[in-house]
Amino acid sequence: MGLIVQKFGGTSVGDIDRIFNVANRVIEEKKRGNDVVVVVSAMGKTTDQLVQLAKAIDDHPPKREMDMLLSTGEQVTISLLTTALIKKGFEAISFTGWQAGIQTEKLHGNARILNIETKKLSSLLEEGKIVVVAGFQGVTEDGEITTLGRGGSDTTAVALAAALKAERCDIYTDVTGVFTSDPRYIKGARKLSSISYDEMLELANLGAGVLHPRAVEFAKNYSIPLVVRSSMERENGTIIEEEISMEQNLVVRGVAFEDDITRITVEGLKDEINSLSSIFGVLADHGINVDIIIQSRIHDQTGSVSFSIKTDDLHDTIHVLERNKEKLGFDSITYEEGLAKVSIVGSGMISNPGVAAEMFAILAENHISVKMVSTSEIKVSTVIDQKDMEKAAQVLHDGFGLAQQKTKATI
Amino acid sequence: MGLIVQKFGGTSVGDIDRIFNVANRVIEEKKRGNDVVVVVSAMGKTTDQLVQLAKAIDDHPPKREMDMLLSTGEQVTISLLTTALIKKGFEAISFTGWQAGIQTEKLHGNARILNIETKKLSSLLEEGKIVVVAGFQGVTEDGEITTLGRGGSDTTAVALAAALKAERCDIYTDVTGVFTSDPRYIKGARKLSSISYDEMLELANLGAGVLHPRAVEFAKNYSIPLVVRSSMERENGTIIEEEISMEQNLVVRGVAFEDDITRITVEGLKDEINSLSSIFGVLADHGINVDIIIQSRIHDQTGSVSFSIKTDDLHDTIHVLERNKEKLGFDSITYEEGLAKVSIVGSGMISNPGVAAEMFAILAENHISVKMVSTSEIKVSTVIDQKDMEKAAQVLHDGFGLAQQKTKATI
Repeated sequence: MGLIVQKFGGTSVGDIDRIFNVANRVIEEKKRGNDVVVVVSAMGKTTDQLVQLAKAIDDHPPKREMDMLLSTGEQVTISLLTTALIKKGFEAISFTGWQAGIQTEKLHGNARILNIETKKLSSLLEEGKIVVVAGFQGVTEDGEITTLGRGGSDTTAVALAAALKAERCDIYTDVTGVFTSDPRYIKGARKLSSISYDEMLELANLGAGVLHPRAVEFAKNYSIPLVVRSSMERENGTIIEEEISMEQNLVVRGVAFEDDITRITVEGLKDEINSLSSIFGVLADHGINVDIIIQSRIHDQTGSVSFSIKTDDLHDTIHVLERNKEKLGFDSITYEEGLAKVSIVGSGMISNPGVAAEMFAILAENHISVKMVSTSEIKVSTVIDQKDMEKAAQVLHDGFGLAQQKTKATI
Repeated sequence: MGLIVQKFGGTSVGDIDRIFNVANRVIEEKKRGNDVVVVVSAMGKTTDQLVQLAKAIDDHPPKREMDMLLSTGEQVTISLLTTALIKKGFEAISFTGWQAGIQTEKLHGNARILNIETKKLSSLLEEGKIVVVAGFQGVTEDGEITTLGRGGSDTTAVALAAALKAERCDIYTDVTGVFTSDPRYIKGARKLSSISYDEMLELANLGAGVLHPRAVEFAKNYSIPLVVRSSMERENGTIIEEEISMEQNLVVRGVAFEDDITRITVEGLKDEINSLSSIFGVLADHGINVDIIIQSRIHDQTGSVSFSIKTDDLHDTIHVLERNKEKLGFDSITYEEGLAKVSIVGSGMISNPGVAAEMFAILAENHISVKMVSTSEIKVSTVIDQKDMEKAAQVLHDGFGLAQQKTKATI
């Protein structure tokens, strides 16, 4: 008998029927003799509706007030799910982020979890209660409500699993597992039975959308096995853990893609060395995630730097840079919207030089031009025109033979 | 320059336009040089919609989880109003009940405020910020979210006014003030320019619906002048304060009425003296408000007691009594639904005997039979059939000449 943390996303709790379905999944786990902590997101489109309300008042609402607003979404879900569990005869109790002791840094909209005070939850679990916790939210030491940014409920679930020393963290979602690529767009995409933390981390960072990268990082650091599975289908999911031997020899294990990317170019850097650290320092201070960075210097001209961001952050980025123009020391900013990122991931790449070259060749054959490139030991990312995104992902999925590989036995 | 607490109800913040309208009213007060604390309710029908969601899961959802659910309503409003104030160039900051330090007793669904920690709010007011607080909610010393029951936002506003030593508490609502009776139903009902706390307390307790009685009590105890006024119309409202001389000589100042009343009769009390205190003790412990109590004992038979409650509490009342049947020592419970309460209020009654008799005469002339009666120094209440309610209120309003009195100069 151990502790299982279960996380259910917005689609899984989208209406009353689905909330009862989730209650049943929770009860099944409880009946197996396990203690259960359940983390839930806001119902269906609630978050989007709340964002719309705020944007009807101000296109760029204050981040503190957005956290105040959005955190109500999960609070509704924990109450309804707990009511359903109690209705079905089980002892259950709900907690908001602050009640669950989820302490975060002071950064509205995209805070990281610093610590979880587990005393209260532990004692309730010992009493046999099912504990239902609002995902995506926490509290600063000053009692300010924060949210964890995109996919924050995954992070809440894994952080709770780590803090409570759970046996496993099950991420229930609207897909049946982690795929070689997004099956909604890519023909032949197939479910992986297992994947390593590092590969998942690259996939998650690259917009595979199944799991939040911070959640995977947390899970890796605390060696929490993660299982991605469907809340509706009764299939086995994909297990994410340290050692995977069976498929280790494959060079490329997945193709990830992400749209709504913008490339920013800051030109005329006066003092290049210092400017670079100042620019990315100031962006980090404002919680803006910069992805690929490319620096170019053409002989004795002043320097420039290009980097990619989510298009959602474009307004903030320009605003922050312009406001600090003097301090940062640059001439002008240009940007290109309508871009996308397509990446290949696989831990086999470490020992296989030439994978990047093969990727570029496949893209070139298909007349797709590459605007930015970034590589790590286990991935190669390219920024291309958004209109080419799906095609690029498909030809790479085909080109690296991902569809042909046999599915291994399910876990 | 002083501190004004403003409270805006659900209708006043029902949509984005109305939230901007409220922002304008707040800004007007701020521009007059006052510090402003704003207390808001949930938007329009939000609370009803949340109740419906919970009832789709369980007809009698757990009260703790209902508080968790309903408290999100005001949290949405404080965020949106604060966003609107900031958009209009004012410094504003929102607080939930727990963040604002509103400490309550441990009673879900109907908690009373015990204390307000004003340190944080005071220092923000000193910085010149407009402070926006979620009404209707608080927190226990264990960190449990509670709600204050019906009209709880009024109580929040007055309690904050008392704790922060405000000059005045303005209750903005969808009516223009306190009327001699409900103008939606009673012909000739007119707005009062002023009224005493005690009279307002009786009117509020009797279902006049404009102000929560606990709010009036708080205001009386701390001598906070209350003003009831419209959030949409620019009319003067009704001031509620200790001394009112001008209209003091009027015997009856208002006619209040309230529907959905149920009379409960508990029969066959074994040990009458002890049973009575046990019955009402056990109901109070469960947060059930009992209104009129009538005890009857017919020579040497066992005793019985009748009392009136809101029909909403019927299920809970029966449940609580039946569960404690042995301890309370009774034979059976009967009840009659579909009743209403109609009352006359006026501080002039103290020195005018015969007002009750006149009331019964007016009702009898109109063939309305009285089922229960309760009197205080400044009011007489009758329980009658719900179908007779409006007629009774109208004939009493006419009979005591309330419509003919001239409206005094507005404040």
